[in-house]
Amino acid sequence: MKNLILLRHGQSEWNLENRFTGWTDVELSPKGREEARHAGELIAASGLKPRYCFTSYLRRAIQTLDIALDAMDRMWLPVVKDWHLNERHYGALQGLNKAATAEKYGDEQVHIWRRSYDVAPPALQADDERFPGIEERYALLGKDSLPLTESLKDTVARVKPCWEELIAPALGLYDTVFVAAHGNSLRALVMMLLGKTPEEIVAEEIPTGVPRVLELTGRLEVKSDRYLK
Amino acid sequence: MKNLILLRHGQSEWNLENRFTGWTDVELSPKGREEARHAGELIAASGLKPRYCFTSYLRRAIQTLDIALDAMDRMWLPVVKDWHLNERHYGALQGLNKAATAEKYGDEQVHIWRRSYDVAPPALQADDERFPGIEERYALLGKDSLPLTESLKDTVARVKPCWEELIAPALGLYDTVFVAAHGNSLRALVMMLLGKTPEEIVAEEIPTGVPRVLELTGRLEVKSDRYLK
Repeated sequence: MKNLILLRHGQSEWNLENRFTGWTDVELSPKGREEARHAGELIAASGLKPRYCFTSYLRRAIQTLDIALDAMDRMWLPVVKDWHLNERHYGALQGLNKAATAEKYGDEQVHIWRRSYDVAPPALQADDERFPGIEERYALLGKDSLPLTESLKDTVARVKPCWEELIAPALGLYDTVFVAAHGNSLRALVMMLLGKTPEEIVAEEIPTGVPRVLELTGRLEVKSDRYLK
Repeated sequence: MKNLILLRHGQSEWNLENRFTGWTDVELSPKGREEARHAGELIAASGLKPRYCFTSYLRRAIQTLDIALDAMDRMWLPVVKDWHLNERHYGALQGLNKAATAEKYGDEQVHIWRRSYDVAPPALQADDERFPGIEERYALLGKDSLPLTESLKDTVARVKPCWEELIAPALGLYDTVFVAAHGNSLRALVMMLLGKTPEEIVAEEIPTGVPRVLELTGRLEVKSDRYLK
């Protein structure tokens, strides 16, 4: 059997400020760091021994992974950082206060943006300073590859090649693989692996800082799905 | 021109305790963390923008790199961890107090072990709990590849394939490459790149936490060599 450990990053500074984050590269809060440490301790106590790790290009996920690996005494593990595992891009909402956005556009519209499967928030302009194509970290990618906004459906489509080309092959080589990422990129993995419908996946809340373990056959069919407590 | 940035990890807990460390996986001290942060700030202030990183399998070097990248706002960079960049293996001296070792073997013998080029300290037995072949992190390597002790000459021979197969090719792809490692694995790189003699390299002290920048031609010949201040 194979094990895929999924971990959503802990609380960030913008969770505290109630702002739409998306690809904005915010810090973990002190509570978020503590969540990451506890997650590492839970994985160590479970007896699972990951051999290969994946995370996103965003520091709140990278730090969560680093802190968890430190707590597990496994800082030496290989880590692949892939922008395909970034959080869903929140378009022109990124950086805005959630309450102020609801006042401006109405609660119902904001609910649709947040909880629909295939409706994206308003897109950024390509010259917006929030467009990833402007950042050095994405400079080696074609600007056409980078999102101006995303629905959850877009995020699922973007995560899929990372699963097929990187994570699944790593599970071919190693018994246990560890992915530290974001609410929506993890939803994408869960949807693909568990065959969830759009309705089911938008209703699924993945808690921060709690390791989720999918046990898989050699053909990568899910045999069990549990959170470590 | 290409730039290779070399950084020796900051102070570790065993530097404080005056013990031979080698491959023992000790923590950075609080001062060591501060040195790492300052090194990252120096690199950022220099205008150098590393695109690819290497470190060892040992947490004091990995943490130094992570902290420096955080200070540079470049946590998203790819990092390759390679055991070939580990510190020189100190054999049966690992874990011993330096003063007690000098009392037992004499100052002159200890000086020879520490400062000769081709004399190794007494070797570990293969069933010693300090032998890396027993550790999970080295389990995928053949036990014959792993040292029971090393002279500096042995370390240079072990670092060489990492330079030839990983770091030099990365410098072919990227203008600036960043290596966070250990006193003796960095000595090995400096010896190879600057063509130093054994006498010169044993006399060379690489300070902790101070980034060293080798500027290289496209053919990887060194054009300048400086520390960032």
